[in-house]
Amino acid sequence: MDERSLIFPAQEFRARIAALQAGMANLSLDALLLNSPADIFYTTGFLTRFWESPARPWFVIVPNTGEPVAVIPSIGADLMGRTWLHDIRIWDAPDPRDDGVSLLADTLAQAVAPNGRIGLAMGLETHLRMPLADFDALRARLAPRRFVDATACVQRVREVKSEAEIDKIRATCAIAARAFARVPDFALAGRPLSDVFRDFQIALLSEGADWVSYVAGGAGPAGYGDVISPAGAAPLQHGDVLMLDTGAVKDGYFCDFDRNFAIGPASDTAHRAHAALWHATEDALTALRPGMLARDVHVLLSRGLERLGVTPGGGRLGHGLGITLTEWPSFTPLDETPLRAGMVLTLEPGCVTAGGRIMVHEENIVLRDTGPELLSPRAPEDLPEIRT
Amino acid sequence: MDERSLIFPAQEFRARIAALQAGMANLSLDALLLNSPADIFYTTGFLTRFWESPARPWFVIVPNTGEPVAVIPSIGADLMGRTWLHDIRIWDAPDPRDDGVSLLADTLAQAVAPNGRIGLAMGLETHLRMPLADFDALRARLAPRRFVDATACVQRVREVKSEAEIDKIRATCAIAARAFARVPDFALAGRPLSDVFRDFQIALLSEGADWVSYVAGGAGPAGYGDVISPAGAAPLQHGDVLMLDTGAVKDGYFCDFDRNFAIGPASDTAHRAHAALWHATEDALTALRPGMLARDVHVLLSRGLERLGVTPGGGRLGHGLGITLTEWPSFTPLDETPLRAGMVLTLEPGCVTAGGRIMVHEENIVLRDTGPELLSPRAPEDLPEIRT
Repeated sequence: MDERSLIFPAQEFRARIAALQAGMANLSLDALLLNSPADIFYTTGFLTRFWESPARPWFVIVPNTGEPVAVIPSIGADLMGRTWLHDIRIWDAPDPRDDGVSLLADTLAQAVAPNGRIGLAMGLETHLRMPLADFDALRARLAPRRFVDATACVQRVREVKSEAEIDKIRATCAIAARAFARVPDFALAGRPLSDVFRDFQIALLSEGADWVSYVAGGAGPAGYGDVISPAGAAPLQHGDVLMLDTGAVKDGYFCDFDRNFAIGPASDTAHRAHAALWHATEDALTALRPGMLARDVHVLLSRGLERLGVTPGGGRLGHGLGITLTEWPSFTPLDETPLRAGMVLTLEPGCVTAGGRIMVHEENIVLRDTGPELLSPRAPEDLPEIRT
Repeated sequence: MDERSLIFPAQEFRARIAALQAGMANLSLDALLLNSPADIFYTTGFLTRFWESPARPWFVIVPNTGEPVAVIPSIGADLMGRTWLHDIRIWDAPDPRDDGVSLLADTLAQAVAPNGRIGLAMGLETHLRMPLADFDALRARLAPRRFVDATACVQRVREVKSEAEIDKIRATCAIAARAFARVPDFALAGRPLSDVFRDFQIALLSEGADWVSYVAGGAGPAGYGDVISPAGAAPLQHGDVLMLDTGAVKDGYFCDFDRNFAIGPASDTAHRAHAALWHATEDALTALRPGMLARDVHVLLSRGLERLGVTPGGGRLGHGLGITLTEWPSFTPLDETPLRAGMVLTLEPGCVTAGGRIMVHEENIVLRDTGPELLSPRAPEDLPEIRT
């Protein structure tokens, strides 16, 4: 067996399935249908970049007792065969007559009695990674079995990371930290931002990332317009603040933190904003405890920024992190998810600077009983200057 | 306006919308609801890697006349504001009370009379990139308006590329070709396959890729076990065949072709398989014409391989290509999509070698009235050897 296809020993996956089955029992679910890349990786260890192809749907069924069953396109049989799963059912996809619907329906019908309940994550922050027409057909075919929302069931298990998972995220954060340390080598005035993005991705790979699923950022004299744009061809200017944000991946686990750099001496506005973001984060690092709600972190960070004399940015000020770039909960005024020890989270305060510009700052932590433990090496308190 | 956020002049997008609206008229659709990253990029030019975050749904509505309307999370307002769209409606996502459903429902209700029809791609090779529970609520709320399948409507427009799109794909293929030319520098016996994958991604970035959405491959003495696995830590061995496959991205457009290399002298089996794959591709490059069906290409390639004395692999032997790594149609025995001039396609014959191992070979083409024009520089006829 190729150890790489497993990432963790089978015992890790058995523990995850046991936790899911305990949650399923609370909801009286007879089976759980998993359909997202993250949920399938989480339960099986099946890791591939082939999700990039939208052509085929993939499924894992967790019965209320016993081991999961994979119902997948034949192109994945070899790789899934190297995971801990024993029951793998395949069809030749894509098949315009029946793209796995009958095989999936038959497998679910065996696992769930006609009066039974099938859990499916259909709530906030989920998608249906299969054709809607096929799901409608599946739902009709399996009636009177009912599909019920299992979003919370999956989230309560996945959101608390094992020590093995925390180690993986810490390792990815360390890779990104080494890449950030190289930024002064290539983020020079006059270089197009697009070249800086390329060099940063190269640095992440050189430092050990398996791949780079996300890089974003921006640059400007007092911050940037947004935080999701691809890089343009405009060159970095003396006096700009450059922000780079990354989702590098190692063994399927993400980091998600950013760093700001001044390209030559930056404005007082930029320095003040950076200091406020850093200190608001520092206060949250001191105050955060299990038992708080996600919305409490939003209050903590936004009040901290106000106290420090800057205007908090809109949107969420952090979120969960793990096997996707962002996971729930969201640090918004509305998210009532209780924080628990073992959650891996990002603290991501943002503030408005001048002329509609913003600056953001982000760290990755694991929440312990005693408070946050940093997974990203702490950013410097003062906005670092790249001398050009 | 930042030209980068547009990729093409507005006229390109207007032509796309006009083509979609012509297809909508044939189906008596009052509006088309677009929800996938590719469809949203296609109609607006909104290009971001932020899709990597599953937290928020995004929507574009194409009315049966007039310009599209974006209904998106506020975090995308700045970037969408730099596209050609004028009507952009935002909400603060993620919102656990109502994550855009009311805003979307109101916008659709304005565009579509109660007895109207809303098109949505819900067929083969599509997903629903929003929570299923929210879609069910939307469907109920908009009744008696009906959602009808618009997969074919979207596919018939997107599958024929404009010359501007073909130029983009050709440019990405050229980047990958330059990266493949560097492979002999780093694919040396004794090096772990994971390091080779990293160096190949670095080469793609160095040669101009904006990012690398997909790299896969494999190595072994007479081929590889599958074509979707991530790299393991096992070192390349003298006598291996190494295959690298890439989905690099430039300006939002993908390439998807692979190359094989012998690490030192390869077996006769490997040489014979490569020659058969190459010649079967060559024959298809001569024979392919608009008017054929997708399944005809499967016949062409699989019979060619049999005639050349090798056993064709299972699964599809090529597919569409453009703004996702793979697009329809699929070269399977079942796909009856007519091939038309302007389609960008991959020819991807595979064959079984020995002991369950396979080899694959892939080129990217645009179909012209007179036959295929290569977008990937043609692979060498003989399996190239990296001397180690």
